[in-house]
Amino acid sequence: MKLLTVDTVSEAREKLLIAAQQKKKQIEFVELEEAMDRVLASDLVSPEPIPSFRRSTVDGYAVRAADTQGAGESIPVFLEIIERIEIGTPAVRMVQPGQCSYVPTGGMIPEGADAVVMVEYCEAFDTRSMAVYDAVSPGRNLIRIGEDIQEESLFLKKGTRLRPQEIGVLASAGVHTVPVYRPWKIAIISTGDELVPADQKPMPGQVRDINTYVLDAMSRKYGFEVVSKQVLQDQRNLLEKAVDSAMKTCDMVVVSGGSSQGEKDHTADVLDQLADPGVFTHGIALKPGKPTILGYDTLSETILMGLPGHPAAAMIVFELLAVWLYLQLTHQPAPAYTTAVVETNVASAPGKETCLLVELVDGDDGYIARPIFGKSGLMTTLSRAWGYTLIDMNKEGLKAGEPIQVILF
Amino acid sequence: MKLLTVDTVSEAREKLLIAAQQKKKQIEFVELEEAMDRVLASDLVSPEPIPSFRRSTVDGYAVRAADTQGAGESIPVFLEIIERIEIGTPAVRMVQPGQCSYVPTGGMIPEGADAVVMVEYCEAFDTRSMAVYDAVSPGRNLIRIGEDIQEESLFLKKGTRLRPQEIGVLASAGVHTVPVYRPWKIAIISTGDELVPADQKPMPGQVRDINTYVLDAMSRKYGFEVVSKQVLQDQRNLLEKAVDSAMKTCDMVVVSGGSSQGEKDHTADVLDQLADPGVFTHGIALKPGKPTILGYDTLSETILMGLPGHPAAAMIVFELLAVWLYLQLTHQPAPAYTTAVVETNVASAPGKETCLLVELVDGDDGYIARPIFGKSGLMTTLSRAWGYTLIDMNKEGLKAGEPIQVILF
Repeated sequence: MKLLTVDTVSEAREKLLIAAQQKKKQIEFVELEEAMDRVLASDLVSPEPIPSFRRSTVDGYAVRAADTQGAGESIPVFLEIIERIEIGTPAVRMVQPGQCSYVPTGGMIPEGADAVVMVEYCEAFDTRSMAVYDAVSPGRNLIRIGEDIQEESLFLKKGTRLRPQEIGVLASAGVHTVPVYRPWKIAIISTGDELVPADQKPMPGQVRDINTYVLDAMSRKYGFEVVSKQVLQDQRNLLEKAVDSAMKTCDMVVVSGGSSQGEKDHTADVLDQLADPGVFTHGIALKPGKPTILGYDTLSETILMGLPGHPAAAMIVFELLAVWLYLQLTHQPAPAYTTAVVETNVASAPGKETCLLVELVDGDDGYIARPIFGKSGLMTTLSRAWGYTLIDMNKEGLKAGEPIQVILF
Repeated sequence: MKLLTVDTVSEAREKLLIAAQQKKKQIEFVELEEAMDRVLASDLVSPEPIPSFRRSTVDGYAVRAADTQGAGESIPVFLEIIERIEIGTPAVRMVQPGQCSYVPTGGMIPEGADAVVMVEYCEAFDTRSMAVYDAVSPGRNLIRIGEDIQEESLFLKKGTRLRPQEIGVLASAGVHTVPVYRPWKIAIISTGDELVPADQKPMPGQVRDINTYVLDAMSRKYGFEVVSKQVLQDQRNLLEKAVDSAMKTCDMVVVSGGSSQGEKDHTADVLDQLADPGVFTHGIALKPGKPTILGYDTLSETILMGLPGHPAAAMIVFELLAVWLYLQLTHQPAPAYTTAVVETNVASAPGKETCLLVELVDGDDGYIARPIFGKSGLMTTLSRAWGYTLIDMNKEGLKAGEPIQVILF
């Protein structure tokens, strides 16, 4: 009775991490235009300061701040205009005491100047002089050299998943080829004599295959490269052939179905036989998700996963284990959660963690989490869910009104 | 002084919505494999119930529940086994009183039976009969016809952005071509004499172009199709030509830079001249983001946007207006937020909304939002941000410890 020796979620995670840490990390370089949503594989240090010159943040006059002391709405200070600096061109003349230069937003601050007075507070007196109606302190209305990124500073950390804003940082630092982790190659195998492809009409007793679609979409969401998707009849030799072939090219092989206690359960045997050291987890203390099988093959560096046949359970286990592992190995932070107050009491199974799906509805002080109850075979249950919360195995459920952390998915 | 007549964010949104509602909605059909992250363009109604037959959720024996009444751990009930149902094949024989049939997980429940007893509570007595040690109620351990999706029911709503779980629902319902909104075609134009491409070394006074990269990445994130990206010198005729040509093919033209009060401000003029009715917003009461220009052209059905030149401000305005508008027109819900407690007092500008960037740090009772202060020209500011919160224009800022809603981005 293998199912008696189930692992907790954290035991299973620890075993997975120990095994998968043997995998060689693979880094590739992509063009900046293609780097969105990829994960940075090295810390980035800037060889130059950004900006590399002092820039004005307003349209105005670059001045020596000391010259403006005492100026005010009705008491102007008069300064000599020595240059009109154009955007995109260097400032040529040094500002001496009693002088100023026009500078547009984004323009270069000339030597000698240490602040900018906005045009709104300036009035031309004649062609060469300017009345200034504002006292500015040093540093006012300008960005210093290196204020955005200091020279030699670490400006983006390994493990950062590149959002539009990081693409902007990379562009500003002139990084146009970006070191990122090579995405995992993954093979998805769904087994079951009852399965027909989604574009076929099922006969009585048959159902459409869901898991290859769901796991393919999940894989894309996290940036994996799906190498193959297969729906197999539940025959040991077919599974053996498919897994053996997938192990040659993939970082992870995921088999769903065939892992409940049914008569045709071959997944654990096949994975254990083809891999060395083989299967190390024969079930996890998670609801839903108990019939989960985990293993590793050292030679091919392949992570092996047998997922429950129920689509919702398969998706939850994939998220909690496969995605978790990938985030760990690529140094990414845990996914952000949102806080909500649970709407009703929820009982949870003693001795196992419970993954509770919730809908979020607007309450007076933020979200209310409405638990979604339903059998794990039901796909629409999962579709109604905004996210999930994990109930600790040592907790006896949740009380209505209790605050929880919901991970959106 | 056009900038005196600024719109609030909600006024600007309302004007955008009224204009853009004239756009014809365009729907296209994609294969299920390609439907991930696309937005459903019609309500979907199922022509058939899912599942289409009663399925067992366990390995066990399909029984008439009434036959098991009185059974218990030490008091078996004896039933005649009449069939071993295979997964994927129809149940053939009707279960009469006193009879049962073996059914695997996912297998078809035979006529006559109304519950399943798990194998764990059954013991073979001889080849034809079974001792049952559990009393089950009707409906136990099975999924009814239509329990996942009822026949003729609306099972996915227009405006749903398709996540892996919705892909699963579509697969289970046999929808293999999916009606989705055609993504907006967008042209991105960045103007400024100081700009050089990101792979060139800037000369003194010059900076690398950031906005085409950031706006391209933002566009991809929300599923827009970027038709062209251009960096232009700030010359009226170049801008005119680029906008005119982009309006012919695009749903939205975004021009960033050239919209502060600097001398070379052509954007508003050009957009107003090329479009009919033209520009309707000449600035918004938002910090950062004041120098924003909005317009519409009825003939080409193009939305026109002039964004601030500062990358962070450009990105925020794009998110608050362009993305907001697209979500509205495609019937998508507002983005999910997370609740956090603000770490320090924050002053906000009176008479305008403030978009406050925050970092989220773990606190005892969930997230603490740490405000990120920095000039809007700084790109790294935005990269440190997990998200933003909008401070109402009638509010005088935030008090340390106040709960806020943070939209992740």
